[in-house]
Amino acid sequence: MTAPSPAAVDALTAALPPESWTRDPFEIAPWLKEWRNRWTGETPLLLTPRSTEETARMVGLCAEAGIPLTPQGGNTGLVGGQIPQGEVLITTRRLRAVRDVTPLDDAMTVEAGVTLLEAQQAAAGADRLFPLSLAAEGTATIGGVISTNAGGTAVLRYGMMRDLVLGLEAVMPNGEIFHGLKRLRKDNTGYDLKQLLIGAEGTLGIVTAASLKLFPVMRSRATAMVGLETPHAAIQLLARAKAETGGGVEAFELMKRLGMTFVLNNIPDTREPLDSTPPWYVLIELVSGEPGGAEAALERLLEHAFEAGLITDAAIAQNQAQRADFWKVREEQSAAQKPEGGGWKHDVSVPVSRIADFLDEATAAVQRFEPGARVSAFGHVGDGNMHYDILCPPGGDLQAFLGRWMEGSRVVHDVVARYDGSISAEHGLGRLKTDEARRYKTPLEIATMRAVRDAIDPRRIMNPAVLF
Amino acid sequence: MTAPSPAAVDALTAALPPESWTRDPFEIAPWLKEWRNRWTGETPLLLTPRSTEETARMVGLCAEAGIPLTPQGGNTGLVGGQIPQGEVLITTRRLRAVRDVTPLDDAMTVEAGVTLLEAQQAAAGADRLFPLSLAAEGTATIGGVISTNAGGTAVLRYGMMRDLVLGLEAVMPNGEIFHGLKRLRKDNTGYDLKQLLIGAEGTLGIVTAASLKLFPVMRSRATAMVGLETPHAAIQLLARAKAETGGGVEAFELMKRLGMTFVLNNIPDTREPLDSTPPWYVLIELVSGEPGGAEAALERLLEHAFEAGLITDAAIAQNQAQRADFWKVREEQSAAQKPEGGGWKHDVSVPVSRIADFLDEATAAVQRFEPGARVSAFGHVGDGNMHYDILCPPGGDLQAFLGRWMEGSRVVHDVVARYDGSISAEHGLGRLKTDEARRYKTPLEIATMRAVRDAIDPRRIMNPAVLF
Repeated sequence: MTAPSPAAVDALTAALPPESWTRDPFEIAPWLKEWRNRWTGETPLLLTPRSTEETARMVGLCAEAGIPLTPQGGNTGLVGGQIPQGEVLITTRRLRAVRDVTPLDDAMTVEAGVTLLEAQQAAAGADRLFPLSLAAEGTATIGGVISTNAGGTAVLRYGMMRDLVLGLEAVMPNGEIFHGLKRLRKDNTGYDLKQLLIGAEGTLGIVTAASLKLFPVMRSRATAMVGLETPHAAIQLLARAKAETGGGVEAFELMKRLGMTFVLNNIPDTREPLDSTPPWYVLIELVSGEPGGAEAALERLLEHAFEAGLITDAAIAQNQAQRADFWKVREEQSAAQKPEGGGWKHDVSVPVSRIADFLDEATAAVQRFEPGARVSAFGHVGDGNMHYDILCPPGGDLQAFLGRWMEGSRVVHDVVARYDGSISAEHGLGRLKTDEARRYKTPLEIATMRAVRDAIDPRRIMNPAVLF
Repeated sequence: MTAPSPAAVDALTAALPPESWTRDPFEIAPWLKEWRNRWTGETPLLLTPRSTEETARMVGLCAEAGIPLTPQGGNTGLVGGQIPQGEVLITTRRLRAVRDVTPLDDAMTVEAGVTLLEAQQAAAGADRLFPLSLAAEGTATIGGVISTNAGGTAVLRYGMMRDLVLGLEAVMPNGEIFHGLKRLRKDNTGYDLKQLLIGAEGTLGIVTAASLKLFPVMRSRATAMVGLETPHAAIQLLARAKAETGGGVEAFELMKRLGMTFVLNNIPDTREPLDSTPPWYVLIELVSGEPGGAEAALERLLEHAFEAGLITDAAIAQNQAQRADFWKVREEQSAAQKPEGGGWKHDVSVPVSRIADFLDEATAAVQRFEPGARVSAFGHVGDGNMHYDILCPPGGDLQAFLGRWMEGSRVVHDVVARYDGSISAEHGLGRLKTDEARRYKTPLEIATMRAVRDAIDPRRIMNPAVLF
């Protein structure tokens, strides 16, 4: 698939109102840069539709002319799926309405360009919770988090974005509008088409609006940082926490001493969360429908965990500031690596029960491949999801090290595959990982995905270089 | 699609071991009858594979020969999707293994022929909960509840079957095996193919095994029957219950005085659950991770609901026997209609907030169409799902009344459509409702479903008369 000809772009823009597109490179430039500067794209045209109907008209014209499109939301994706390489760029960020919030349905309908933070706020305004939460929530849009099936820190209790969508409105690759915004909890009338669009990374259509599930605001919340000897102990603690609270664990985040050191050394206004310096940390957050319930459950849990020898140290956040401090050392784990020289990054998942063994085996394999490399593993261990990052050995040749990223990743991903894991737990494949994924998907899986894609987008105009 | 020729069936059976099929009409007969006697099927051959590999071999042979297949699980479906009309019948009920239960993953892997009850028991044996629960659970199989995306009484807290599946193994329409049993909570590596098979009613392949989500066993549970003046009050009570308990409502079932009368008159060993005889009842069940938490939350809720004038009467179950009595008057709502002459049955859903208005409008429409008809509405109102049944006017001509079922359903379904609802909330479309659904689905939806189906089953050998 090649970029559209200037004549094709001329014809397209001539058919559209001038306020709905731009060819000005200065206006387009910010949307061609991925925020970590790992991707720079190019496009002859940025389409900025102001409504679902206008989006449909644009896609219809592109479909007729065979012009490929890359849809973009908040441009916070980590795998380059939103960065065009010659395709026309179409942004949903001007679809900005919160169409309705209906507390009695525990539902709200928002357009694709509403940010995740704004969606959370719209829910809060109706005394409800929209639980998806991730670092980029101030910029990431609802259309984007649906198209990438985003995860984040509350998946353990509330699920991935897929689990939070009641209905979708989308423009299909032929320019027709799929009207699927029903706010139903149960609807068994044929294939659930919205499931195809969720996580399709813009390859099967453009999500323009969504009906989302809301939840009750919890009456209590309690947060602790604990120290542990091993990830094995962390998994046992997780099982105990889930059993004791009946599903009240909202976050369970594992960190390693090395990553904690990076944070303490490289990020201002951070401090050691415990009196001791254990080899592993877990940030645990419990919620409860009972006022005071989470605090009581957390104290009981930690007492039992000490008795069972699962944890060596613990601190319960006594106020919001202390809670924020605990979360800060977790959230800065990735940024804190930068001054250390950057590294090979991975977003992998394995079954929860196998995380500890996976970490042992992967780290041994990495050490064989790159002796002295520093492994900073952290993440949503409650979901089996680790951000498994490998930094250059101290004093090593950084550029040469970064040049071996793909080979090094292969070492990690092969271990992931042996553990029945995923090489992209929450970030998607995009342009970065599609080739790598071909190695781990079966021919049947790839053929089936292609057949579905061909069925829905026979001219392959939607994000053609992304996925299979 | 016509039934296979005797020669084609001869060739198929000649290629298979004799213990894996039967052509004996007496052996086959029980599997051609739907349990309510509304459907009787026919088939030249029953295939009874004993393994996934044998299932794959059989489907492969049928694919080559163009022989259509109807898959069947426990044969408890309510819309005739499991009853062949000339197709070869293939049953998964001999795929009986519980392959593993891994409490640390909150997961288990079971084969398609394991019953729902056995799956619940396997989970309980590992001190975990598998929450899907429905009246036919002793007979319905895991393969069947996945293929129909079954619902039941705990959807409010745990979701539909779709929400409970971590991974699938299935035989695709070309006879290849889809190995998708990963026990991952997060996996964003292309389209989520299992979502296509869930709820596809056997049209896209045959589910042979599944990895299922398990949950903590709750530490307390409390059940009440309450009396209310209107369904509007029920919806307000539901919102209050969800907010006060932070998600602790597991069941919220609405019943009408008329349906209660049928139960008390027609079902032995039932008794009036309240001292009063209110026009509407709600059976509410709360759970909590705290020992004693559910009981305390229920008492508080009912006190607040009395104060707010939402309920007029309430009884809290004091023991298991009383709880069973409350559930019995709910579960017998359908059976209790039979001695009244049967009726037009509907399994519909609307947004929760609109249930009360829907009931008013639908009942008015039904009365215009069939003056004197008796409406017995009950069901999972917490999910917006009502079993909306219409019985013959007292003294009316029952046969003539039953003959107007389809016309009467049209009246109800048109109101459902005006409320953005679904004409099949949890039972599926099968052979019964596919034609009716064509009226309410958009041409785009039907065309997209057909395109996906053609892509995956180009010869349309899988359950060809079911869905679009």
